[in-house]
Amino acid sequence: MVPHLTTALTGPINELEARILESMPAIERWFRLEWMEHTPCFYSSVDLRNAGFKLAPVATDLFPGNFNNLTPEMLPLAVQAAMAAIEKICPEARNLLLIPDADTSDPFYLASVQTLVQVFNQAGLNVRLGSFGEAPQTLSAPGGGELTLEPVQRYRGRLGLKDFDPCTILLNSDLALGIPRELQGLHEQYLLPPLHAGWTVRRKSRHFQSYEEVAKKFAKLLGMDPWLINPMHNACGEVDFETAGGLDCVRSNVDAALTKVRRKYKEYGINERPFVVLKADHGNRGRGVLTVRDVKDLEDTARLRERMGLAKDGEAITDVIIQEGVASYERIHGTVAEPVVCMIDRYVVGGYYRVHADRGTDENLGGPGSSFVPLAFAESTQLPRAGAKPGASAPNRFYMYGVIGRLAMLAASYELEATDPEAENID
Amino acid sequence: MVPHLTTALTGPINELEARILESMPAIERWFRLEWMEHTPCFYSSVDLRNAGFKLAPVATDLFPGNFNNLTPEMLPLAVQAAMAAIEKICPEARNLLLIPDADTSDPFYLASVQTLVQVFNQAGLNVRLGSFGEAPQTLSAPGGGELTLEPVQRYRGRLGLKDFDPCTILLNSDLALGIPRELQGLHEQYLLPPLHAGWTVRRKSRHFQSYEEVAKKFAKLLGMDPWLINPMHNACGEVDFETAGGLDCVRSNVDAALTKVRRKYKEYGINERPFVVLKADHGNRGRGVLTVRDVKDLEDTARLRERMGLAKDGEAITDVIIQEGVASYERIHGTVAEPVVCMIDRYVVGGYYRVHADRGTDENLGGPGSSFVPLAFAESTQLPRAGAKPGASAPNRFYMYGVIGRLAMLAASYELEATDPEAENID
Repeated sequence: MVPHLTTALTGPINELEARILESMPAIERWFRLEWMEHTPCFYSSVDLRNAGFKLAPVATDLFPGNFNNLTPEMLPLAVQAAMAAIEKICPEARNLLLIPDADTSDPFYLASVQTLVQVFNQAGLNVRLGSFGEAPQTLSAPGGGELTLEPVQRYRGRLGLKDFDPCTILLNSDLALGIPRELQGLHEQYLLPPLHAGWTVRRKSRHFQSYEEVAKKFAKLLGMDPWLINPMHNACGEVDFETAGGLDCVRSNVDAALTKVRRKYKEYGINERPFVVLKADHGNRGRGVLTVRDVKDLEDTARLRERMGLAKDGEAITDVIIQEGVASYERIHGTVAEPVVCMIDRYVVGGYYRVHADRGTDENLGGPGSSFVPLAFAESTQLPRAGAKPGASAPNRFYMYGVIGRLAMLAASYELEATDPEAENID
Repeated sequence: MVPHLTTALTGPINELEARILESMPAIERWFRLEWMEHTPCFYSSVDLRNAGFKLAPVATDLFPGNFNNLTPEMLPLAVQAAMAAIEKICPEARNLLLIPDADTSDPFYLASVQTLVQVFNQAGLNVRLGSFGEAPQTLSAPGGGELTLEPVQRYRGRLGLKDFDPCTILLNSDLALGIPRELQGLHEQYLLPPLHAGWTVRRKSRHFQSYEEVAKKFAKLLGMDPWLINPMHNACGEVDFETAGGLDCVRSNVDAALTKVRRKYKEYGINERPFVVLKADHGNRGRGVLTVRDVKDLEDTARLRERMGLAKDGEAITDVIIQEGVASYERIHGTVAEPVVCMIDRYVVGGYYRVHADRGTDENLGGPGSSFVPLAFAESTQLPRAGAKPGASAPNRFYMYGVIGRLAMLAASYELEATDPEAENID
């Protein structure tokens, strides 16, 4: 089952699909060359939105917690990709220490951790789970079996568990609440992803700046307008939601963004009302995501604070990214569906649709408490069918999603290189 | 559907399966370390035989022509493995020249070539087919579509087609009939597999000598008797089938081999009659394969010549390998089934059973005119299930087959290193 594109304006996306398909060898070669210069993220997942006239990534997760959504048919690809990833980093490794997120209350997340353990175990590693707690903790995994979290221990320069010295430490926590002391200053082991991939350091605006660079390169390769795959963005630092003046930067940027999008819509004959999305510039799991169609929506600051979800816990959002909104016009049984592409190393290992009954085309489908139905991609992203009518073939659409997903992951590689605190500054 | 093991004596194989399963991380690490020292074969397929008390490879094909037997579900694994293989060899490659076997009369073989084209195309290469013919030739592929073979051209040091300069030349011909002039002295391009992997140079006895070395290493890792996975062998060079005395070496080696096998059967309490298999030491596609249970069977030279298939075309077999026979006790609907493991680079990309209605447990299931039914492995070789009862889980059996298949492929790597005419001799 493949979602339908419920918009009359599918011409541009079908043209993009056809162009991507006919350029497949060139695209794959281009990726190969990029990976000669840049290191792929260890694992990642990318949320996409397909508006029919435009296809763009809207979020790139470097600590994916959604491996439970991969179907059993996709797991061999994940195992094979994990083998390739491990072989490059630490071929002589025996042990992998996986550190899940501190919040293990979500059974779906536990199932994702369980899948990760399975994948890396089958790739040939003894996998154990670490936590920053005081005592070991045993959790019942939803798919049966148990997961045991053991307290991590520092021995001088190394991190491990009792009687367990890993070559690589795999973080599955986005570090939004800060970098634990135990993870700091590890120089003898591989810590993946690196600490600056966590939300204590990472900024969405920096990611999309890199994505714009990648999208422009890729668009040049294909001879197309990068806007078709790139959501425009601006950022405001030091926003103060408490005072009316504190939102001036946001207002002027929203206005400018809406004008730019309007101009693009006119150029492409898109008869829709543009919108932008306001997000906290550092990750906060879907909180503080707001759709704005008119700068007037920003006048009532109190209501704005509430809609940004700030009232709930009083956490301050000081940095804001204003991103061109990309509507999601894929539908399953009348419900909005948003594709998610999952990657390990440079390989797309699968994908699924986040299907959300209660949300609109222009709304964020993630976020806390969002109950979504995962719908696995019916077929691999690696088997496009040349000759099929554009827009009519599920494998071709999945291949296109896999390409855009990889562009976002490549952008994250650029981003992490640029923000690496240990990189030498060659200015 | 998984074939049944129709022998009461499944204890040793179930024990092997259990040991392989519990040692999975150690095994995968061992392979990783081996691949740091040795280069995996570009592609390969390995025929296995499971006798219940023993599991052994009986043939390692370095020019596999059976990609048509991979199911659509397995193809993404093949594409991903091909991406990894190409990336290592020639990441900047645009073009791949695939040279199929000169004999393209078999529609199944054409389907295999078609699958190879698809896999490497989707891995990101422009693939074209070369031949040593005078003019281009267009063949109808059984799955629809056409395959065009174009005459290869030499431009000084490089081989290509008209307006097609490949980075890599992929041979899918086993060179049994000799090495074409056009393929000689290519130093500017990658020629894979190398020429000395062809049957003009390769000898089965050399392969099984390397396999014995690999099997011993692996058996040491697992703490088991290498005989459980290694078919013992001897070889005779300069055999003369025309004279009675010309077979003396064969007779004495058959006798010695049967004695050794008998001793092993006694050690393991195997109440069966041992047999050996006589094969031409260089590949000749299943001709000249003979099952011998008693040295007396070798007395009638005329009948022997006939049974070795020599009468048909008078081709001389001068080198013979005498290999311990391994019965195949897997059955589907009462029919002998022989597993075949398919690999690209270091990865098992799939497998299938060769099911042959007309042959016995101790007979060669390949060979010309052998009409077999391919039965794809129902599940990936990469998802064994810990905790399942030994012998009761298809994924676990497939994982074990994948491990033994990779051992044979690793042996081929050792073999090709040892027989490389261009390697420096450091003696």
